[in-house]
Amino acid sequence: MKTPISSLGKVAFVDHLTANTQANGDDAAIISRGATLELIAPMIYLEGIHFDLIYVPLKHLGYKAVVRALSNIYAMNGKPEYITVAIGLSARFAIEDAQEIYAGINAAAKNYNIQVIAGDTTASITGLAISITAIGKVAPKKITRRNTAKPTDLICLSGKLGAAYMGLKILEREKRALEGNSGVQPQLTGYEHILEKQLRPEAPLAVVNALAQAKIIPTAMIDITAGLNSAVLNLCHRSNVGARVMIDRLAIDSQMSKVAKELNLDPLVAILNGGDDYQLLFTVPANLHKEVEIFADIIGYITEPEEGANLITPDGNMATLSSPDFAAVNND
Amino acid sequence: MKTPISSLGKVAFVDHLTANTQANGDDAAIISRGATLELIAPMIYLEGIHFDLIYVPLKHLGYKAVVRALSNIYAMNGKPEYITVAIGLSARFAIEDAQEIYAGINAAAKNYNIQVIAGDTTASITGLAISITAIGKVAPKKITRRNTAKPTDLICLSGKLGAAYMGLKILEREKRALEGNSGVQPQLTGYEHILEKQLRPEAPLAVVNALAQAKIIPTAMIDITAGLNSAVLNLCHRSNVGARVMIDRLAIDSQMSKVAKELNLDPLVAILNGGDDYQLLFTVPANLHKEVEIFADIIGYITEPEEGANLITPDGNMATLSSPDFAAVNND
Repeated sequence: MKTPISSLGKVAFVDHLTANTQANGDDAAIISRGATLELIAPMIYLEGIHFDLIYVPLKHLGYKAVVRALSNIYAMNGKPEYITVAIGLSARFAIEDAQEIYAGINAAAKNYNIQVIAGDTTASITGLAISITAIGKVAPKKITRRNTAKPTDLICLSGKLGAAYMGLKILEREKRALEGNSGVQPQLTGYEHILEKQLRPEAPLAVVNALAQAKIIPTAMIDITAGLNSAVLNLCHRSNVGARVMIDRLAIDSQMSKVAKELNLDPLVAILNGGDDYQLLFTVPANLHKEVEIFADIIGYITEPEEGANLITPDGNMATLSSPDFAAVNND
Repeated sequence: MKTPISSLGKVAFVDHLTANTQANGDDAAIISRGATLELIAPMIYLEGIHFDLIYVPLKHLGYKAVVRALSNIYAMNGKPEYITVAIGLSARFAIEDAQEIYAGINAAAKNYNIQVIAGDTTASITGLAISITAIGKVAPKKITRRNTAKPTDLICLSGKLGAAYMGLKILEREKRALEGNSGVQPQLTGYEHILEKQLRPEAPLAVVNALAQAKIIPTAMIDITAGLNSAVLNLCHRSNVGARVMIDRLAIDSQMSKVAKELNLDPLVAILNGGDDYQLLFTVPANLHKEVEIFADIIGYITEPEEGANLITPDGNMATLSSPDFAAVNND
């Protein structure tokens, strides 16, 4: 009898798989290099799971793959320096298509001032696969990990969430409308902001710079790629703490919320269980309240582990935070 | 009008794609770290292209993926220290299947004394995708690259080629025999050696150790993953030299040659255009002839670029070396 992977959440599954390895459960692996720490973060990006080539321009895809990879280095408070790229291309791709992907990769490399130092390119019979490993550095006293949040720490968020998810919903709607109607043009006007957040997001460099300028080293940090809940639960799980997140502290992206109404969706679902935000969630000691709120939103605080991870609704009720990534972990 | 990727050979295509990057055309990227060089080699391994799950046990697959990745570090005369792993798993996989892959990865890590320091695991709707990035080190005076072979250098080979390719041919034959005949057992007895070379190859650590012990630093080195021709042409292309490879100097694996006869195949094709050998091709100055032949086969020598890359047949005739990886490069 075999056990379906879906019976475990992603986090428990990965913990289980990597139990006999030296993987640390963080955004990036850490290697000591003299006075500095080297950070290495692998990332695999697959057609059909992470992107749909029907509506993602290849150049944007290359750009976004780099953003996804760099995001893991920024989450450790690090500075990315290099990426390696491995791509599997199916036969329907032409040389010009592969060049478009690389144009996006090179544009992101230029914007974030990193070097593309190695590439493996191969055929694929299944679909497009892009694997990017980001390599960066951080001073030992500056590194931020997932497992070091402490009760009473403030929970801070680097930006608004949910726009990328809502952009995806618009793209999916237009894809359905086009199916079997080759003459129809997609209706994308008026959705530019949320579409840009979905198709060509930026990595959270600004908040890492703001932290450095304010001379603040978070007690813990994690990137938000699968919604707020998954990030909070991950931090709580790794740090063995609980959390309270106040819903009325979550800043709402106005176009996101407008489109949510149009699509009859709950904007809170986009924030809590959406994805592709590439913002950072971090914790700081409570006395840094004023310094942090200049460049980040304080959305809650860390509690003792027994309290679990909870949402506080505007009327003061408490609801357990949940995420498919934590199907099993969250039940213990 | 778009240009099919097949109109360029793999090497010209990758050169073209990475023209605006800092990729060096070597087996691994090189980063300077104080007194030592760090080597980083990405590798992507895809179902349907690189392996067929019908006949590859998952544990062996994990092992072989690590061997493929480490091979790139050994080819630079380096010592691998770490790997990162990113896996895309389709829904048909159970937790036990993923554990089998990781058991193979961990077994290889143990054998080659490396650490598995990070993992990204995701769903896949297409097929199994494994991306492993190997990280290693080498002293600056010991590093071997692809672009530094010199005319009159001897061309040396770390072991016999073609057995893995012939193992694949047996597996393919048995797969065809089984199709539509679920009661039939595959006939694999007597083929153990070539099957092991295909399913559970080892990385070329022995030759790197032998070079160190003999205090020989090759003038250039490359790993052989797609047959001898591809490796020789790659070395010639990067080093801007020609080559003469003497066919009668190529050691023949006896089981490989026996099975070639059984399957009506030319054993030379397996050696020249097979794959999955994970041996190293390297060049040394001609005066090291005696020292090298203790642990490697001397199969030819480097020439001026005008002479091109050629095979010398036992009767003294010359034939141009060719490989699909060099469809275009070889024509100039």
